[in-house]
Amino acid sequence: MGKNRLEAFSDGVIAIIITIMVLELKVPHGETISSLAPLIPVFLSYVLSFVYVGIYWNNHHHMLNTCKKVTGPILWANLHLLFWLSLFPFVTGWMGENHFASAPSAIYGVVLLMAAVAYFTLQQFIIASQGPDSLLKKAIGNDWKGKASPLIYLISIPIAFWSHWVSQGLFVFVALIWLVPDRRIENILAVKD
Amino acid sequence: MGKNRLEAFSDGVIAIIITIMVLELKVPHGETISSLAPLIPVFLSYVLSFVYVGIYWNNHHHMLNTCKKVTGPILWANLHLLFWLSLFPFVTGWMGENHFASAPSAIYGVVLLMAAVAYFTLQQFIIASQGPDSLLKKAIGNDWKGKASPLIYLISIPIAFWSHWVSQGLFVFVALIWLVPDRRIENILAVKD
Amino acid sequence: MGKNRLEAFSDGVIAIIITIMVLELKVPHGETISSLAPLIPVFLSYVLSFVYVGIYWNNHHHMLNTCKKVTGPILWANLHLLFWLSLFPFVTGWMGENHFASAPSAIYGVVLLMAAVAYFTLQQFIIASQGPDSLLKKAIGNDWKGKASPLIYLISIPIAFWSHWVSQGLFVFVALIWLVPDRRIENILAVKD
Amino acid sequence: MGKNRLEAFSDGVIAIIITIMVLELKVPHGETISSLAPLIPVFLSYVLSFVYVGIYWNNHHHMLNTCKKVTGPILWANLHLLFWLSLFPFVTGWMGENHFASAPSAIYGVVLLMAAVAYFTLQQFIIASQGPDSLLKKAIGNDWKGKASPLIYLISIPIAFWSHWVSQGLFVFVALIWLVPDRRIENILAVKD
Repeated sequence: MGKNRLEAFSDGVIAIIITIMVLELKVPHGETISSLAPLIPVFLSYVLSFVYVGIYWNNHHHMLNTCKKVTGPILWANLHLLFWLSLFPFVTGWMGENHFASAPSAIYGVVLLMAAVAYFTLQQFIIASQGPDSLLKKAIGNDWKGKASPLIYLISIPIAFWSHWVSQGLFVFVALIWLVPDRRIENILAVKD
Repeated sequence: MGKNRLEAFSDGVIAIIITIMVLELKVPHGETISSLAPLIPVFLSYVLSFVYVGIYWNNHHHMLNTCKKVTGPILWANLHLLFWLSLFPFVTGWMGENHFASAPSAIYGVVLLMAAVAYFTLQQFIIASQGPDSLLKKAIGNDWKGKASPLIYLISIPIAFWSHWVSQGLFVFVALIWLVPDRRIENILAVKD
Repeated sequence: MGKNRLEAFSDGVIAIIITIMVLELKVPHGETISSLAPLIPVFLSYVLSFVYVGIYWNNHHHMLNTCKKVTGPILWANLHLLFWLSLFPFVTGWMGENHFASAPSAIYGVVLLMAAVAYFTLQQFIIASQGPDSLLKKAIGNDWKGKASPLIYLISIPIAFWSHWVSQGLFVFVALIWLVPDRRIENILAVKD
Repeated sequence: MGKNRLEAFSDGVIAIIITIMVLELKVPHGETISSLAPLIPVFLSYVLSFVYVGIYWNNHHHMLNTCKKVTGPILWANLHLLFWLSLFPFVTGWMGENHFASAPSAIYGVVLLMAAVAYFTLQQFIIASQGPDSLLKKAIGNDWKGKASPLIYLISIPIAFWSHWVSQGLFVFVALIWLVPDRRIENILAVKD
């Protein structure tokens, strides 16, 4: 009941977030290739955030595949996740326009951390709604990625004030460990069918 | 007939409203944490409006779950609701940029009031379309929340010119009474199944 | 085949068009009620266009309800309609910011005319795809509204340079004749069921 | 499994891309017809990109109709395609505002090329997922359009620095060969039914 609409609404919000981020790439005034140069950090921060939002959409998609019924707490935990994702365009633009400076990188880490916490909360509510034989609980196993990511975001925040490039490296590193195919949920669902 | 498309269109519009509100959070020019300070009121007004739009989406979702057929009046009452919701980004931005000053707070109250009236109208059309055994009518009961909210918005409008903080307090208060889980419709639907 | 996706894509585009029009309502710098005064014409043009886009969505919704299969020409005729609707935010903003001056009113009429022609074309392709017993053909009957509207838009274009208020009156008049409930398609579908 | 949601998300992103491109058509300050003149190149570049995004949506729609199951690589290949499509508003605005100058035209060609490569990659992953009797493989045949287009984009990039009008002519030419109805997939699906 209502799961389709939850997915449709989340898809809509995530699709808009991923697309309006590109509005921070402001059309330059010059008409030469070199007038694109100042946009390079904005473009790179856009790529990083596009990948992150893509990972969230992908994982959200798999997680909801295991979900049978939508409860009130799931609805609100989902809106909470969408709230933090909705701040991506802002922090991405700020970080890009300031060439990955310390404070914007730290705040980017804060938003990544809060989104990860919100995702984890949503996951817990779905598991709770499924009872002791939760398919999702079985699928995520020990969930080392889900536990390591927020820790890495957390340490990347103070590190940004020491070396913002190390923080950026950590952001890229976490994105890469999620990009590696993760067949946990697919496998469990396949076995079940 | 057509209910799915009404939901899909409403989801699309609400998803866009909730997301473009964040565009009022303009990327600051400085690169220090302190350059975020002037954005705090804009951010707080964004949080308040995000919660309000989330409540509307949530309630809309439950209300349409009880609706079997979509009539012409329902279509237009729904568009009327979406019209007032579409003014949220404007009033949110105006209120945030003026640090919750009197006039913007009063106009924010006007938009909240009109959206509540539009929601109530839509609810009445759906009940009317369901005939004497209306599931929705049973589900909302005496609907004290739906009746108290517009009254509170109404008194918050003149109050804003006396103390805009009292008006803001009323807006937060109404949001909180809706956030408290409201299982009326869920219960009625569960009983029926 | 594919009708759902055509509807979903059209809903998405129309939902975005109806929502980004509100971005032309720029947040004013002052914090008094009087600082809203210059926005009144922009607001009124927004209301007019919101109603027009709402009418298009409503009619599109009913028309596609009669459509069983989606052909290549229907896909492109639909995109052609969406193209003209996508110009609504531009012409609405231009007309509102110039207080309904002659040239913007005339161009608004041109966009209304082209959208009406595109809608008519789409309708003809759907009728053609349904063969001699076309449900849609039966439903629209002599289609006097669909034929009168483009004619009125056409004469409103030169009239705008003589008196732009007469043109605005014609735009409002056409919107009103469409707002009057039109049960043609609903009736035919009900009979068929 | 999950195909509907992949389509819904892609539809959302493409609908937003096609619509926010129109935001580059900035409302002019004057109120005369002649104040629209500087917008003509921006408008023409909008038309070209609208047609291109429309073609992509149309082909994507047909291609996914043949797809039964969604794998991890298909999800990511689809996001990769959406990434390059999301750059259309930027390159369209830059090209339009600089009257189709050489560098913006070349970069427009680069984005067209990358989108074509991403589309081809997605197509290969879908074919691979369908095994030896791939319906999609049969449907596209020798796929001369899909192979010729990226080649033409590739040569249009250096040509833009010699004559940007020849590049523009090539962009229009490729759009036209895709607009010619292509019944391959429709035919194969019809035969199969």
